[in-house]
Amino acid sequence: MEAAREFLLKRLRQIGLHEVRLLDGGGEPAVYGEWMGAPGKPTLLVYGHYDVQPADPLERWHTPPFEPVEIGDRLYGRGTSDVKASTTIALEAVAAYLAVEAACPVNIKVFLEGEEETGSPSLRAIVARHGTLLQADAVLSADGGRASATLPTINVGARGNAQLEVRLQSAHKDLHSGRYGGGVRNALHEMARLVASLHDQDGNVAVKGFNAGAEPLSASQRADTASFAYDEQAFFSSVGAASHGEAGYTARERITLRPALDVNGLWGGYTGPGGKTIVPCEAFAKMTARVVAGQDPGDVIRAVLGHLRSRCPADCTLDVVALHEGSPASTLDPSHPLVQSAGSVLQRECGRAPIHVRLGASVPVTALFKETLGIDTLMFGFNLPDEDVHAPNEFFRLSSIDAGLRGWVLLLATLAEQPRERFHAGGRAAAKASQV
Amino acid sequence: MEAAREFLLKRLRQIGLHEVRLLDGGGEPAVYGEWMGAPGKPTLLVYGHYDVQPADPLERWHTPPFEPVEIGDRLYGRGTSDVKASTTIALEAVAAYLAVEAACPVNIKVFLEGEEETGSPSLRAIVARHGTLLQADAVLSADGGRASATLPTINVGARGNAQLEVRLQSAHKDLHSGRYGGGVRNALHEMARLVASLHDQDGNVAVKGFNAGAEPLSASQRADTASFAYDEQAFFSSVGAASHGEAGYTARERITLRPALDVNGLWGGYTGPGGKTIVPCEAFAKMTARVVAGQDPGDVIRAVLGHLRSRCPADCTLDVVALHEGSPASTLDPSHPLVQSAGSVLQRECGRAPIHVRLGASVPVTALFKETLGIDTLMFGFNLPDEDVHAPNEFFRLSSIDAGLRGWVLLLATLAEQPRERFHAGGRAAAKASQV
Repeated sequence: MEAAREFLLKRLRQIGLHEVRLLDGGGEPAVYGEWMGAPGKPTLLVYGHYDVQPADPLERWHTPPFEPVEIGDRLYGRGTSDVKASTTIALEAVAAYLAVEAACPVNIKVFLEGEEETGSPSLRAIVARHGTLLQADAVLSADGGRASATLPTINVGARGNAQLEVRLQSAHKDLHSGRYGGGVRNALHEMARLVASLHDQDGNVAVKGFNAGAEPLSASQRADTASFAYDEQAFFSSVGAASHGEAGYTARERITLRPALDVNGLWGGYTGPGGKTIVPCEAFAKMTARVVAGQDPGDVIRAVLGHLRSRCPADCTLDVVALHEGSPASTLDPSHPLVQSAGSVLQRECGRAPIHVRLGASVPVTALFKETLGIDTLMFGFNLPDEDVHAPNEFFRLSSIDAGLRGWVLLLATLAEQPRERFHAGGRAAAKASQV
Repeated sequence: MEAAREFLLKRLRQIGLHEVRLLDGGGEPAVYGEWMGAPGKPTLLVYGHYDVQPADPLERWHTPPFEPVEIGDRLYGRGTSDVKASTTIALEAVAAYLAVEAACPVNIKVFLEGEEETGSPSLRAIVARHGTLLQADAVLSADGGRASATLPTINVGARGNAQLEVRLQSAHKDLHSGRYGGGVRNALHEMARLVASLHDQDGNVAVKGFNAGAEPLSASQRADTASFAYDEQAFFSSVGAASHGEAGYTARERITLRPALDVNGLWGGYTGPGGKTIVPCEAFAKMTARVVAGQDPGDVIRAVLGHLRSRCPADCTLDVVALHEGSPASTLDPSHPLVQSAGSVLQRECGRAPIHVRLGASVPVTALFKETLGIDTLMFGFNLPDEDVHAPNEFFRLSSIDAGLRGWVLLLATLAEQPRERFHAGGRAAAKASQV
């Protein structure tokens, strides 16, 4: 983390940004730099993040996760796709303007977070402490990538998230299964029972209140989703996964427009080679909820906790190891100047109008900037859905670099023509996003 | 393992045993030594094991697991109670006879296994290759300890065991829960559902055929079990565990006379610090079955596997990582000269007749020696039930050393008076044990 910050501080100064510094909020600080030489023009906060997901399981990587390795059109490494390449594209577009024209068409404030992958715990504090510095007309986010390499798309929303880790204890210590087996509760049996109760057999979340507040899908949302040329079978079979989930929705609706609950890690007892004849005394589970517009992530994750607590046997204990409310879903109105500017850029580059898509993943900064700074975010990243983010052998396509650089250079020029006040008019959906 | 073998080879020679050597069966070899200077007297195979359980979780130990540390009456260390102290007591009783009287009252064959804790995978091969060397009239096992420090007991049987490890796979790789969450099967959800299906809510095993073949409890078994002064509440509350299990049986019956199924380890997904927003693609579970007289451990563990396979969704795969049949339950008839000799020793030492108890744990060698060598085993270990075997902070009571040495010296003298043919008469139950 320290090395990444040092690299960025140096690079931001090198390309000609001012006020380059760390913004501290009590956790991993953000990296900041600005170029404010376009008076009267819009000011864009360029968002990216320099933190990455853990690299394990290390044994599944074919190349060292923290060494960039080029193979064909791919650059392998943890964080290449999520989201260092897209962040670099944004910075280098600004660098190119400053190097070639000695000026940018808009004012730029670069803001690179260090806690995106851990739920942005100190982002609120950073914005509270440095809110004046961060004032802008809109956010351009390098996070939130393309849905397709061939079809131009604009992200107009993202699911929110919330996180829970629990520990179930059934005894003071692990017990010899020959001495106690058949006589006592087994923490793994009980945890399995709790986890199994979270969904029904068909994949519907069985937690009361989990879907509460979720806005019903509108006709236009369903039409937009259906218009995205989406080979459902290929999407799942390319990763060997089975389509499985809530009844009454297409797969693409389930993963972008509906709440979801996943156990991300589960463990207890002896997990090494061979066997160990114990009755394990404790078990752990990590889980995350994805929430949609209209839902409060805190309410949703507390509903999950309440479900687990009500089902935990009275003679076991269930402790909360971690509970993070994360962030609510975000929504950007299609009439917003950010969407329209991106639309005209993509129309010019791709020869056809982009379609509107929504992200199943969460970009907490989006909702937080709307709430605290009152500004909307356009996601304009160039990573693609198959690049194994959050998994071993993450990569970024080298061919996306040209597309990304052209897109960002054009986007900044196009946004320069937008009157500043239009960014703050706000659409119905955009305003509403700040309240969920 | 190598150091333990070297230590034992040296010590066996030192105390005056002959033919000291390793007996190889393709795995960890056994250590052997003999003293055959009592012609016409019974030959006793003294069994112990020098392997131990894994020491983890290491962070739960208060002293280094592989350094013996004396604190009060306790000697802490992995393997102290299971079963190095009791093995040492047996060896030192022989050593004392040879040192003081230059002779033992019986012929002795010491056989120290190196694979007891891993299910004795090569024990059968060792016995097959070295069966002539191992011919004896009976086995005295240092494994299988005392049930109580104050009440004299004789073990007349032990549960058998079998082991299974499975891997469930739901996709080719871990998937981003933002991109796939709500759309696909999650290996942890499915594994939790499988594990939860193994028992009903009350703790009864729900696997069809799991209890098949188990002999109904006899009136004398239930009476013996009830006569053992057993504070059920203290037994469970001392380890913070809740009594939980099969309906219709007392807790002590459940853990010594009835089959049991425990998941010993369960894991999948991200288990490190913080969170990782993935849909895990695989999950693992290790489990062991305890079986009783009348049951075939292979049939029992295959019933468990069949249960899991029949419930695994068709679009996931369930692979067997390991399946070990282990060993059947063992039974020793109360009229057997081994039981009667031990009875008279304990009567003399403790001032009252011992009661007969059975072990919930498994001592695979017992059934194997009966089957291959046709001889019965008396368990005469001196560890106690609360010594945290298979758990952190395992210890052995130093005060048990005196009791053990006196017991073994007397036992060898008493057995020397038994006509050799009486060892081979066999009881109904003992003969039956070789067939289950």
